[in-house]
Amino acid sequence: MRDTNRQFRLAKRPEGKPDHDTFDLVETDVPEPGGEVLVRTRYLSVDPYMRDRMSAGESYADPWAVGDPLRAGAVGEVVESNGAEFEPGDIVVGNLQWADYTTAPGAELTEVDPELAPISTSLGVLGMPGRTAYFGTTEVAEPGAGDTFVVTGAAGAVGSIAGQIAKLSGARVVGFAGSDEKVEYLENELGFDAAIDYEATDSYPGALDEAAPEGVDAYFDNVGGPITDAVFTKLNVDARVAVCGQISLYNATERPTGPRKLPGLVSTRATVEGFLVRDFSPRYGEATKQLGQWVASGDLQYRETVTGGLENAPDAFLGLFEGKNIGKQLVKVSDADE
Amino acid sequence: MRDTNRQFRLAKRPEGKPDHDTFDLVETDVPEPGGEVLVRTRYLSVDPYMRDRMSAGESYADPWAVGDPLRAGAVGEVVESNGAEFEPGDIVVGNLQWADYTTAPGAELTEVDPELAPISTSLGVLGMPGRTAYFGTTEVAEPGAGDTFVVTGAAGAVGSIAGQIAKLSGARVVGFAGSDEKVEYLENELGFDAAIDYEATDSYPGALDEAAPEGVDAYFDNVGGPITDAVFTKLNVDARVAVCGQISLYNATERPTGPRKLPGLVSTRATVEGFLVRDFSPRYGEATKQLGQWVASGDLQYRETVTGGLENAPDAFLGLFEGKNIGKQLVKVSDADE
Repeated sequence: MRDTNRQFRLAKRPEGKPDHDTFDLVETDVPEPGGEVLVRTRYLSVDPYMRDRMSAGESYADPWAVGDPLRAGAVGEVVESNGAEFEPGDIVVGNLQWADYTTAPGAELTEVDPELAPISTSLGVLGMPGRTAYFGTTEVAEPGAGDTFVVTGAAGAVGSIAGQIAKLSGARVVGFAGSDEKVEYLENELGFDAAIDYEATDSYPGALDEAAPEGVDAYFDNVGGPITDAVFTKLNVDARVAVCGQISLYNATERPTGPRKLPGLVSTRATVEGFLVRDFSPRYGEATKQLGQWVASGDLQYRETVTGGLENAPDAFLGLFEGKNIGKQLVKVSDADE
Repeated sequence: MRDTNRQFRLAKRPEGKPDHDTFDLVETDVPEPGGEVLVRTRYLSVDPYMRDRMSAGESYADPWAVGDPLRAGAVGEVVESNGAEFEPGDIVVGNLQWADYTTAPGAELTEVDPELAPISTSLGVLGMPGRTAYFGTTEVAEPGAGDTFVVTGAAGAVGSIAGQIAKLSGARVVGFAGSDEKVEYLENELGFDAAIDYEATDSYPGALDEAAPEGVDAYFDNVGGPITDAVFTKLNVDARVAVCGQISLYNATERPTGPRKLPGLVSTRATVEGFLVRDFSPRYGEATKQLGQWVASGDLQYRETVTGGLENAPDAFLGLFEGKNIGKQLVKVSDADE
């Protein structure tokens, strides 16, 4: 137990790419739970969507206010619970702060069984990224047997799971990722049929002609930009595109432009659909159960990149935009025995 | 009956905008039907999709060959039929040539009952454009009661019908069109809730804020380009976009660029879907029946812009790209009593 709490606040709204000046690490008292639950963070999740919350613009969620604590999916240990829901020592997951300690209403926390899987998976393969991959693949991109499925950010928390789910559906799976190491991971450990190192490729269309010679039937897009432009030129008739994220554009300071895609949709009759995992919240239980079964059976592999120390959370977050992580990027804030 | 036949051929592939040099008018003998049906053209239809067929690039249909006769949806009178299907004097619609006479297999012609409606409607409200509007609206854009439905090319053959079908579904209907006269037609004759003269508007987003103050739930796009860019910024959550055509881009000589739209699809969870009416061909009968009932009941108004004389077909076609037509653009090739 720490005597004091450390908490990251939004120092200012980033113009373009965030940097260390975006974050303010403040020391405070450990918060009093009042009628809520006091949680000590074990792991917190940094995710690309957070970039959007740092801006003032309109989005699907309210922006974070300058000076306010940053929020994150996090898993931690209950220190004090003044409601009846939890006991000290229980492990819970929820929307907490980039902090050592957070108080939260019990109704907004979900208990995690540490016997079933490492608790960090509640932020990754068995958490929001896993569910995003599950619904985006099975409900939006909908790859079937014999289809070619392409995913960008393929070695990331969502993409790596999406590709494996597509593989389970019988599709040929092609991933875009940003290093040799990632390509090897996708092809040799996750069973992708092909992976393309976009940093080492001089022609995305050419790479796709080789990796997806029969065109693209289902596309799960986490990245956007020129890779997506190339994939759109390879879409087959009745292709489905699931737009999950567009990380390559999140730090743009002007509205990004690119080749117009709508003309191509007429000839392909393709469907392009954005989605948010929260729209599937009534079915979270189904997803978590299925993902857990696949993990248990060995059908679904996952990896985590863990950065040690709350003070390094900004580095972990900023690294997402440089593709530094393989699998889920986490920040380890405390140990069980601390 | 003419002694000779006139026939337009593709003189050369247009670079950018077609012009009179694109077309070659050739005098030939009246073709011999052999085992086919000889049809004398009464009306032929010129449509934006034809621009695409004039280019060599890949599309959903094979390009027309240079030197070959141009094709068109056309309605005409059977002159000679060596199969049993038709009698001389029967009125038939089918894919014919830009010509006085065409021969065609009987199986590719459909009889038209001139007692039910003017035969020209088989090329417009009761033909391909009407069916395109019907399926694009009811099956792809899917406006419902209380929704706001926006259509571009709103005074054209497809847009004018799409808007009225959306109105029948209980939606608020907003159209973009290119003149005062068209705006008046849409608002006063077709019952659109609002129409925007895009030639006289200095801000499409501003015009939409006024015409569609509750945002856009369903969008039927015939035009593309900057108007579509503006509509995309006004899409509501779970909006549907039906991409029917992109006439503003058809004459582009370089791949057009514009603001990237995929990031906006995540927050709106909008669906963008291209479609071709031919994919609904098993249901053409249903569409034609419903459209005919609406026309008969007065729920569906239509207008035709008729250019006289086969020799003026290129002008009629080129006028489509300048928005010269209101409703269906036709070319009248012959009269019943000629």
